[in-house]
Amino acid sequence: MQPLLLTLLIAVSLGAYATPRPNIVVILADDLGYGDLGCYGHPTIKTPHLDKMAAEGLRFTQFYSAAEVCTPSRAALMTGRYPVRSGMAHNQFRVLRAVSTGGLPASEVTLAQTLKDAGYTTGIIGKWHLGVWANNQPQHHPLAHGFDFHFGLMHSNDMNPSDKPRPKMANSLVDQDPEWWNAALYRGRELLEPHTDQTQLTKRYAEEAVKFIGANKDKPFFLYMPHTFPHTPLFASARFKGKSARGIYGDVLAELDWSVGEILRTLKEQGMADNTLVVFTSDNGPWLLMGTETGGSAGLLRDGKGSTWEGGMRVPGIFWMPGKIKPTVERNVASTLDLFPTIIRLAGGSSPTDRPMDGVDLSGLLFKGEPIEREVFCYYRGEELYAARLGAWKLHLITQAGYGDKPVTHEKPLLYNLEVDPSENHEISAEHPGVVARISAAVDQHRATVTPVRSQLIDVVAK
Amino acid sequence: MQPLLLTLLIAVSLGAYATPRPNIVVILADDLGYGDLGCYGHPTIKTPHLDKMAAEGLRFTQFYSAAEVCTPSRAALMTGRYPVRSGMAHNQFRVLRAVSTGGLPASEVTLAQTLKDAGYTTGIIGKWHLGVWANNQPQHHPLAHGFDFHFGLMHSNDMNPSDKPRPKMANSLVDQDPEWWNAALYRGRELLEPHTDQTQLTKRYAEEAVKFIGANKDKPFFLYMPHTFPHTPLFASARFKGKSARGIYGDVLAELDWSVGEILRTLKEQGMADNTLVVFTSDNGPWLLMGTETGGSAGLLRDGKGSTWEGGMRVPGIFWMPGKIKPTVERNVASTLDLFPTIIRLAGGSSPTDRPMDGVDLSGLLFKGEPIEREVFCYYRGEELYAARLGAWKLHLITQAGYGDKPVTHEKPLLYNLEVDPSENHEISAEHPGVVARISAAVDQHRATVTPVRSQLIDVVAK
Repeated sequence: MQPLLLTLLIAVSLGAYATPRPNIVVILADDLGYGDLGCYGHPTIKTPHLDKMAAEGLRFTQFYSAAEVCTPSRAALMTGRYPVRSGMAHNQFRVLRAVSTGGLPASEVTLAQTLKDAGYTTGIIGKWHLGVWANNQPQHHPLAHGFDFHFGLMHSNDMNPSDKPRPKMANSLVDQDPEWWNAALYRGRELLEPHTDQTQLTKRYAEEAVKFIGANKDKPFFLYMPHTFPHTPLFASARFKGKSARGIYGDVLAELDWSVGEILRTLKEQGMADNTLVVFTSDNGPWLLMGTETGGSAGLLRDGKGSTWEGGMRVPGIFWMPGKIKPTVERNVASTLDLFPTIIRLAGGSSPTDRPMDGVDLSGLLFKGEPIEREVFCYYRGEELYAARLGAWKLHLITQAGYGDKPVTHEKPLLYNLEVDPSENHEISAEHPGVVARISAAVDQHRATVTPVRSQLIDVVAK
Repeated sequence: MQPLLLTLLIAVSLGAYATPRPNIVVILADDLGYGDLGCYGHPTIKTPHLDKMAAEGLRFTQFYSAAEVCTPSRAALMTGRYPVRSGMAHNQFRVLRAVSTGGLPASEVTLAQTLKDAGYTTGIIGKWHLGVWANNQPQHHPLAHGFDFHFGLMHSNDMNPSDKPRPKMANSLVDQDPEWWNAALYRGRELLEPHTDQTQLTKRYAEEAVKFIGANKDKPFFLYMPHTFPHTPLFASARFKGKSARGIYGDVLAELDWSVGEILRTLKEQGMADNTLVVFTSDNGPWLLMGTETGGSAGLLRDGKGSTWEGGMRVPGIFWMPGKIKPTVERNVASTLDLFPTIIRLAGGSSPTDRPMDGVDLSGLLFKGEPIEREVFCYYRGEELYAARLGAWKLHLITQAGYGDKPVTHEKPLLYNLEVDPSENHEISAEHPGVVARISAAVDQHRATVTPVRSQLIDVVAK
């Protein structure tokens, strides 16, 4: 087929979905669990804006982050590839640290760069965690990876303990005293505040986002908003602190929810709602190690952050474009890997063709309710493939609790039917040898596409 | 105040809530867990009609059955009193059996009788379980307790094993072969079918309900629909069997959901929706002992049926009267004990004044969003008070898993904050001695109102 004809066909077919070249907003919560929003069944956490977003849009009940912890999950979202392919995973050093010199390799093609190449204005507001620019690594700055605009932190908000004496511990391992945590806030390459007031972060992110949207009314934009919270330590502004029944975790979520509401309100007020795809999701499951007060909930799912049991990787996933995406509770499997091909399809850009891409284009499902063709979905912990899902079935080759536990390799892999048994209670490999064989074959096929690369998570600044 | 003036005042105040003397429909699922509906967060069970009912109405997130198993829970709903008061509880014989001769004492005043006295037509369609009339105990028939109309089973659907050889076991303790379970279906005092086809029950209940509503358009009615399912063994009609992703449990819930939809549709079509309060709830938590395939889910709550941990007694609670009850996610505590005073208030009848009543009138909350004044809510297991809730706090005096476990009496009671910690993970009595003392005092106060009575659950037919 001739390129011009192909382009025309894509344009015609896109027209049926949504206005060509819609704006894109991807909001990523940090350590938010599957069960932590009102619309996912939490009894006391109030998230009216997200609940409304879900009621007006499409809410996935089987949506996955592509890793069980922060850095690899973000690498997957930004590249559309399993993090093992980019070296953004490591079995021991699970995430980039404040002292890391590694980061997303320049050879990786980011969603931001691809959209920028397609004519989008691109902005990131929030936590990057794909390279610590401050360690004299300019190539790791978001501005070096396709973003025109940047405001936020380079990594997690618990990665720079202060020199001050540690305050009395709360009921979690991380105390909630803002004095004790240094977090450096940047605007682009400018260090705004070496010790920013974390209680103001969510509010400031929202204000920056509203400004970014207002400044980009006339051409398509991509806004990536990886929030700092509800990763611990937890901080909310005075307007929200102490106001929720669910304690500080509920306060922080109420503010996060408010900030989402601000963005949706702005888009509606500016008449951009029906031409902006807004996605809300989380980078991994709840950090159960943090305890009841400051850790989240995976609802009925097993385990949390750090684990490849469902609670570690199944997260909220809400897609919103009023008038274009119909209100739906969607039970198909999808993941953050799918954002790359889906968004590039909508934006009219070109996905890389010189490397394996792991996502599936969801646009037919989102805008027309069409079935999606998905092969196996792989659950990695670090560089290791622990489990794989094919249709309703999940096969565990290795299992491990989120934290403080050793991996168990299963000579006879464990099989669960996640549609019947979402809590992974009832192991049924003996009853379904054919399914075990089918998933094992799919895993082999996937493995054949993975070329080992050196992990970026190893290197640190010299002492 | 003079009686006439009082009546007038009540009438005026009622007018603000809802049309005086609305119809009442109470739909009670059997062993349905807190996490089993789409609107309560289940990822694969589809309940579109109940989800719509919740979206149009008021959905409680902290709604309780007043007992952890079937018979006492139904006694509480029907009398507005803790079952220990009526003798409808027992520590060992937890529920009435097929051979029981006991039942709800004639001295108890039922919701049905009170509404009938107030001029309502009253009907029960479904499972009674407050006395086995067939054991030569005519006083235990629903028709002897205030119901004008009756269609259904006298007790649970697993209580009459057949003489046929037991079929191959499924993955639960109860096999799903309809041939193996006798269930006698009655219409009033007539035995319709000694071995009814349980696959048809939900459908027939719905058809009877639609007929009952159609036949009572001209005067107020009370329809009580205690469903047979999803109590095991599970049966669905051909239209639903094998159709859901969640297996037979999902099939059964899809049919139950359809049946609720039929009732709401009928009310809408007949122009009765804005003058009929429909309540949907469950008699207790999920029967976890039944296993993954045939037992339900309590979502993020701990344990299930038979336990006074939250999963045993916190259940879905949806109240619907379009145009009169606003769409709300309601986080106040409420319980099936509250149905009696609430419904009697709306119907204009008189609650008994010669005995302790345990519920709270919810009408102000439902129709006007007014706060409710609740004292302690008690969690009984059998005749024993195991735990109590006051505001956000729950104190466990005794704990016990749903089944197969012994009670543990806590010399130092366990304290949880259910709003921060709905999963009851983090015991905090040491931090809050004042709260422990306050709940203990409230429990003492409650206990002083309980007069021991002989349990109705002891006596059985002579062999």
